Amino acid sequence: MADPVSRWLEKFAKALAKPDLGATADLFGDECYWRDLVAFTWTIKTFEGRDGIKAMLAATLAGAKPGTFTPLGQPVTENGVTEAWFAFETAAGRGTGHLRLRDGRCWTMLTTLQELKGFEEKAGRARERGLAHGVVPGRLTWFEQRQEDSAELGYERQPYVLIVGGGQGGLALAARLKRLGVPALVLEKNERAGDSWRKRYRSLVLHDPVWYDHMPYLQFPDHWPVFTPKDKMGDWLEMYARVMELDLWTSAKCLKAAYDESAEEWAVQVNRGGQLVELRPKQLVLATGMSGFASIPEIPGADLFAGRIVHSSQFDGGEAWRGKHCVVLGANNSAHDIAADLWEQGAEEVTMVQRSPTVVVTSDALMEHAWGRLYSESALEAGIATEIADLTVASVPFRLLPAFQKPVYEAIRKRDAALYEGLEKAGFQFHFGEDGSGIHATYLRRGAGYYIDVGASQLVVDGRIKLKSPAEIERIAEQTVLLSDGAVLPADLIVYATGYGSMNEWAAQLISPEVAARVGKCWGLGSETKYDPGPWVGELRNMWKPTQQPGLWFMGGNLMQARHYSLYLALQLKARYEGLATPVYFVDPVHLA
Amino acid sequence: MADPVSRWLEKFAKALAKPDLGATADLFGDECYWRDLVAFTWTIKTFEGRDGIKAMLAATLAGAKPGTFTPLGQPVTENGVTEAWFAFETAAGRGTGHLRLRDGRCWTMLTTLQELKGFEEKAGRARERGLAHGVVPGRLTWFEQRQEDSAELGYERQPYVLIVGGGQGGLALAARLKRLGVPALVLEKNERAGDSWRKRYRSLVLHDPVWYDHMPYLQFPDHWPVFTPKDKMGDWLEMYARVMELDLWTSAKCLKAAYDESAEEWAVQVNRGGQLVELRPKQLVLATGMSGFASIPEIPGADLFAGRIVHSSQFDGGEAWRGKHCVVLGANNSAHDIAADLWEQGAEEVTMVQRSPTVVVTSDALMEHAWGRLYSESALEAGIATEIADLTVASVPFRLLPAFQKPVYEAIRKRDAALYEGLEKAGFQFHFGEDGSGIHATYLRRGAGYYIDVGASQLVVDGRIKLKSPAEIERIAEQTVLLSDGAVLPADLIVYATGYGSMNEWAAQLISPEVAARVGKCWGLGSETKYDPGPWVGELRNMWKPTQQPGLWFMGGNLMQARHYSLYLALQLKARYEGLATPVYFVDPVHLA
Repeated sequence: MADPVSRWLEKFAKALAKPDLGATADLFGDECYWRDLVAFTWTIKTFEGRDGIKAMLAATLAGAKPGTFTPLGQPVTENGVTEAWFAFETAAGRGTGHLRLRDGRCWTMLTTLQELKGFEEKAGRARERGLAHGVVPGRLTWFEQRQEDSAELGYERQPYVLIVGGGQGGLALAARLKRLGVPALVLEKNERAGDSWRKRYRSLVLHDPVWYDHMPYLQFPDHWPVFTPKDKMGDWLEMYARVMELDLWTSAKCLKAAYDESAEEWAVQVNRGGQLVELRPKQLVLATGMSGFASIPEIPGADLFAGRIVHSSQFDGGEAWRGKHCVVLGANNSAHDIAADLWEQGAEEVTMVQRSPTVVVTSDALMEHAWGRLYSESALEAGIATEIADLTVASVPFRLLPAFQKPVYEAIRKRDAALYEGLEKAGFQFHFGEDGSGIHATYLRRGAGYYIDVGASQLVVDGRIKLKSPAEIERIAEQTVLLSDGAVLPADLIVYATGYGSMNEWAAQLISPEVAARVGKCWGLGSETKYDPGPWVGELRNMWKPTQQPGLWFMGGNLMQARHYSLYLALQLKARYEGLATPVYFVDPVHLA
Repeated sequence: MADPVSRWLEKFAKALAKPDLGATADLFGDECYWRDLVAFTWTIKTFEGRDGIKAMLAATLAGAKPGTFTPLGQPVTENGVTEAWFAFETAAGRGTGHLRLRDGRCWTMLTTLQELKGFEEKAGRARERGLAHGVVPGRLTWFEQRQEDSAELGYERQPYVLIVGGGQGGLALAARLKRLGVPALVLEKNERAGDSWRKRYRSLVLHDPVWYDHMPYLQFPDHWPVFTPKDKMGDWLEMYARVMELDLWTSAKCLKAAYDESAEEWAVQVNRGGQLVELRPKQLVLATGMSGFASIPEIPGADLFAGRIVHSSQFDGGEAWRGKHCVVLGANNSAHDIAADLWEQGAEEVTMVQRSPTVVVTSDALMEHAWGRLYSESALEAGIATEIADLTVASVPFRLLPAFQKPVYEAIRKRDAALYEGLEKAGFQFHFGEDGSGIHATYLRRGAGYYIDVGASQLVVDGRIKLKSPAEIERIAEQTVLLSDGAVLPADLIVYATGYGSMNEWAAQLISPEVAARVGKCWGLGSETKYDPGPWVGELRNMWKPTQQPGLWFMGGNLMQARHYSLYLALQLKARYEGLATPVYFVDPVHLA
């Protein structure tokens, strides 16, 4: 019991057991954070300062009954901060925690629910046998049972959870629910699982590296390329749905959903390959994609344009535009990928119209300075399995993220000085976020605003992709666009790489504007930076946790988030399915900005 | 350098380096074995005794140039035998070895080739990026490239290796060749990859447990059932072919193959979905299944039978035989599964006709006493990864296998005494092989002759599956079968669960009887037990190694063998593809018994 972490945990456990909230709070430093992922609060919430922590504990301790705090592994001390993992239990489940101590007191704490007692996943030693030993007259084979279950689900038998959207978010959640024994059904509007990737623009390749992108339970084999091409990702997701035995309807479009207050369930109208079906799930999860609801600007004269106007989500490759004049509005990931594809395919002229500054970082720099420590071969060799990497990321309170990230971007700026100089000369507006906190923070604040450079920046530097910046398209004519700087560009193609709206626009469309307004916007931290107005929330709004609308949940984000947060959403749904008490400590206030 | 393994390896390396064959041989005990998997001999061969080892070294040392023998991990000593792993290199590649020392001398040695220098698989840190950084005008996307490659292969471009059969053997080999960059094409006669499993009898579930059954590179997720149902296995293989990007033609039947001596390549006629295609591969691999060529007995009167006669491979489920009289000829795995299925589905009478003794072991006993040590959750927790388990199995020379296995079966006999007593009372003939060496040895000797009990034995004990033993079907009449004991049974269905012929019958059919005769039988050790006549070969004949026919290879066996031996066959093919010297020390003599 000599080490500071064991000593701290012992005092902490004693104080909680009494309970003595004053003594508990005294264990935390003047600056302190406690991030809870469903373990104490049945939601996802970060508490800042001793008072916030005390208030949370006052409300949750009686229900959570936390105990058996046990150090895991060896603490690591660096720059006066001691980091350590620990296990703990609550009345309902088992959890993993992370601790940062400074001067003997807690600076940051993470508590995560990992499994529900009595409802553990059947894996490893607990896996099913796959056959009943002995012989049972009239039993169905696995295949017959799967066929029967699939035929009944949604007709004779209702799914407890309906997941709208069969991308990585929907499938990751469905896989976890499957292993937890919660009847769930995924609606995928396209013909095949994975089509949400396949149908993106031709040249799309994941910008996050493979170590970051594993789905739950089934990792890519070790020859998988660092950056997965979109169609390969589509194939992987299609396979995933199949071998994980997910219940998935393809060509199934969710038309309308209404919450039946008295029955406490949803009435959901679905067009399944031309057949209308009404589903009655208790829980409705919108996994329709962070990048699902296209933002389309209204530009005067667009209706007069003789060429083609497409949103980036509809762009299907540069081949058709050989020898043509192309204007790409926007300067983030999609804009760069599409502009590069158009140039590669031999467009006569490609002009990027940049409206506001972009965070630009090369993929190599991110591997070296940002991802690499947690998601790489080196990390794996150092014993940092994917789950540990995910929890490590989760252990940094969002308030501290800028301070953690700034040195990374200072190093990156030096590393790629030549590129940044070139961009500057080319007139490209770049930054590392208003406060220099880089891509990760920008992604959490706005879900957009960056380019992970895989080569297109050099095309901008070299002038092969032409640039207008800062500029807007003011007006569109039959064969030209007029920019805010007065330039007139000939145009056969205009691509709106203008991003996506908030996920709650899906709620407005599928449910009602009233419910969308009751729930408020999704995503964003309230960082009071541009595009992410306050007040400070300290977590992504409405994501993977209870919302103001009973039975409505949002699932979204990149592959890492799909993998990691699907666990917490799945556990919340499982607890409700089993009728466990799930007192939610706090629901985000509505935010409509 | 204090430990005996390091000391031994040092002396061994010195003696080889001189080379001093006498000194090398002196390091081996009076009883000694050296099993080489492709590292020294470019074949798979066990050498017994000092003279055999000396002769092998005399012939191979100059080419193999072995060196840098390095102990791996800690040696383990038990009952006077010290076991240890080691790494080594040859001129061509890197290998893993295993050593058993007794009284300071080598009792058994295993040397395996793991990779070819300069041709390592692109995995982990060496994986591909998935995109060329920078932009390349006119480049194809991953999907376009895959489509183009698939369209060309077999037409504009010939596969170097043609694999006939898309079961686990063909796919495992194809996956390894893909990672090694050897152009290979798999022909699958069925509509979908995995159909070779799906089309087996309805109730089939793998009798080997999940830990034994992983494919290379991509393990089942950890909720996968212990015993995989056949259709689920089919889905996994179909997915595997897809995500491993194997080049696979479905509905593609190999009609005829002939070796063109002058061109040193095969001319192979293929019916691909109705279209005739001639392929010209350099190497032809028959992966048509150990259980692929049905053995059908000729029984007088069969042509007069009014009911249905099917071979077990054609049996499609007991449902149609409710209320009917069924006779199953045979008493091994398929016979038991099919008899149990018929009984479960409500057949009026199911009679098993047992011709000769069967090795019967319960699946639970095998887990506990045989598989469990190497293939189980406990093994994984003890750090025995699948590859280590496979190499451990490979480290036991086949000559020693009975001695290693007998105590296991003595324990199993005690464990399941009640079952064996019941079988004895029911008149069922069982044994543990002629010499008590159990299932594994029986499988290697004959590829048949056993039942891994998952419940049907109790049906035999209880008389619900009726038994005639020992007995033969002597004659079939319109509605009855006449047995050798004089009994006449009414019959609507007769199932020939009579097993399969040798894989070289495929060579006879697809190539020519002459080539089949030149190659000789496949499988079997020459153990001089029933069904496995001598002379002793000490390895499975013709499997995964050069045969008497240039360019002809056999790939087969259970999932474990498909996984493990596909490596050595793939390396042999890769070496030839790259034009490396591959002096084959020894080719099995032809065996036609």
